[in-house]
Amino acid sequence: MKARLRNLLNRLVKENLDGLIVSTPANIAYLTGFNSSEAYLLVAKKERIYFTDSRYTEEVKPKLKSVSLKRIEASVFELIAKTSLDLDLKRIGFEERHMPYAEYKKIKESFKSRAYLIPTHNLIETLRLIKEPKELDKIREALRITGLALEFIKGFLRPGLKELEIAAELERFIRYHGAIGAAFDIIVASGPNSAFPHHRPGQRKAQKNEPVLVDIGVDYCGYKSDLTRVYFLDKINSLTRRIYNIVLKAQGRAISRIKPGAEIARIDGVARKYIADKGYAKYFGHSLGHGIGLETHEAPSVSAKNDGILIPGMVFTVEPAIYLPGRFGIRIEDMVLVTKKGCEVLSGFIHK
Amino acid sequence: MKARLRNLLNRLVKENLDGLIVSTPANIAYLTGFNSSEAYLLVAKKERIYFTDSRYTEEVKPKLKSVSLKRIEASVFELIAKTSLDLDLKRIGFEERHMPYAEYKKIKESFKSRAYLIPTHNLIETLRLIKEPKELDKIREALRITGLALEFIKGFLRPGLKELEIAAELERFIRYHGAIGAAFDIIVASGPNSAFPHHRPGQRKAQKNEPVLVDIGVDYCGYKSDLTRVYFLDKINSLTRRIYNIVLKAQGRAISRIKPGAEIARIDGVARKYIADKGYAKYFGHSLGHGIGLETHEAPSVSAKNDGILIPGMVFTVEPAIYLPGRFGIRIEDMVLVTKKGCEVLSGFIHK
Repeated sequence: MKARLRNLLNRLVKENLDGLIVSTPANIAYLTGFNSSEAYLLVAKKERIYFTDSRYTEEVKPKLKSVSLKRIEASVFELIAKTSLDLDLKRIGFEERHMPYAEYKKIKESFKSRAYLIPTHNLIETLRLIKEPKELDKIREALRITGLALEFIKGFLRPGLKELEIAAELERFIRYHGAIGAAFDIIVASGPNSAFPHHRPGQRKAQKNEPVLVDIGVDYCGYKSDLTRVYFLDKINSLTRRIYNIVLKAQGRAISRIKPGAEIARIDGVARKYIADKGYAKYFGHSLGHGIGLETHEAPSVSAKNDGILIPGMVFTVEPAIYLPGRFGIRIEDMVLVTKKGCEVLSGFIHK
Repeated sequence: MKARLRNLLNRLVKENLDGLIVSTPANIAYLTGFNSSEAYLLVAKKERIYFTDSRYTEEVKPKLKSVSLKRIEASVFELIAKTSLDLDLKRIGFEERHMPYAEYKKIKESFKSRAYLIPTHNLIETLRLIKEPKELDKIREALRITGLALEFIKGFLRPGLKELEIAAELERFIRYHGAIGAAFDIIVASGPNSAFPHHRPGQRKAQKNEPVLVDIGVDYCGYKSDLTRVYFLDKINSLTRRIYNIVLKAQGRAISRIKPGAEIARIDGVARKYIADKGYAKYFGHSLGHGIGLETHEAPSVSAKNDGILIPGMVFTVEPAIYLPGRFGIRIEDMVLVTKKGCEVLSGFIHK
């Protein structure tokens, strides 16, 4: 935590900021080491102050290290403003992508022109881009639980089960195996529902000879996993097999290009071009992947729009897909770590 | 949906607005009739337009009634701005409590001073205050499932079970009984953990002769329930029983005052005073309750700060509590509906 705080304070100096109001839960977790909710963290050179209300104070107190605690009694915004002024901060950053306009306005008003609120973005997210060994351990553990859950569900799947029942078994399983819970609403999409990239599991029953797409992530000590596999109930018809193999090869090609210095947009491009060459360009609408760690979706976005390059320590998903509306969809999603020489498929041990 | 849109359009006229950018998911659900994510809805007199990306378009298309669909290809903010300008809207509201500052800034910039962004709050939330019969049906169904889940877990509880295992069984059970999933992270807090109002279930095992607090809500067709019960593993010691009875009586007193026209702050006050008179004022820090419907926490807040009065059709929780740090906590939470003559405890059928 100390090194993280030091890095952030250096960033603040560069940005000519006296302090930063952190409101994004994952950023607070990154800086304090525990998962908080309904909280704000004020970071300044002199002091770090954690603001939360009576529902959380008792639970949080023993966990705070080199961070002091202020209990919110009335307006949190006035309290943050008063605390900032007491610390003699003048230029105070806030996280513009997370803080609602109304909160910005209230804090600004509470400053009464004695201090200034400065929009910032990605100050902490940039630090989070490169995973530390301890963070990787937690991600690996999240993936280990995910792998167990997928092995279990493969044996459990059979025609006649509702999507929601399959999701229910997965939700139960991961908690018995050490996860806090799911990282996001688990997707179970049977037959034609698999053509909806973010299908919510419902009452539909899986049928013989159709694909069942399972997209599952778990939360282990705040760190997330995110994996997609498609299982087949009995026979696979030739079109489905053909599409599956295209998606699998697109993924393999993208992964083979992952190494430090590679352009991120090119990684997306390699998979996209392969799918386009096979004639399915318009059935792969989303980006190839996304960073993952304390949040299921974080930097880097692995898309045509990202003009950055890969750096060792980045962790992200690689999830090409082809969705044929009204018929079925295939998405294969793995998690990779950029290493010094290339990459490691962190989820490589989970059978496809 | 039509009446809801009409009511909203009337509100816009009163506020001198030509249109409203709706970004709060529950508000979009209220106006469109389905649960969306990663979407924006532009409401104007002439037209309603739903903006989402390729991951959702196919799924959403058949559900949109009298709302047109625009697929986000590049910047959603530029698209919203361009669409607003094409419709000749000048004064366009946005939801200031939900929209992040960065989004506000981007839309504003895209308007290039040809239209104005006006902060609004609670325009739709105020409409949602009064539940329609169809909404009540869904809330009742959410409660029916919650009741079944609590009956089930009462039979399942035994010393030696981990909190996470108990939560896992509840998560599984509700999906087998018709819920989409949990309304929030289910709280299972055993022994001293019950003194943390928002405890996250962990590896601790429930022990003989201690209370186990279960706070559970389910999502049924977008509508939420929220219920807390405390179960005892074997014997209840006399202090625990005493505290339990104080909380129960405080709840009963508050509920007995619920009727149209009653001051909301007074409802909170009645329960708080009873607990204070027994000497436990400082162990009940949070407000008495909160509105519930499409969101687990919505208007009205049942707290000392709310200067409003009760109106038939409001639905909210009544959840007094006493938390004794390091020892245990008791919270009893029910859901009530304000009726024409008084109130109905919607969760009255769930055994305490």
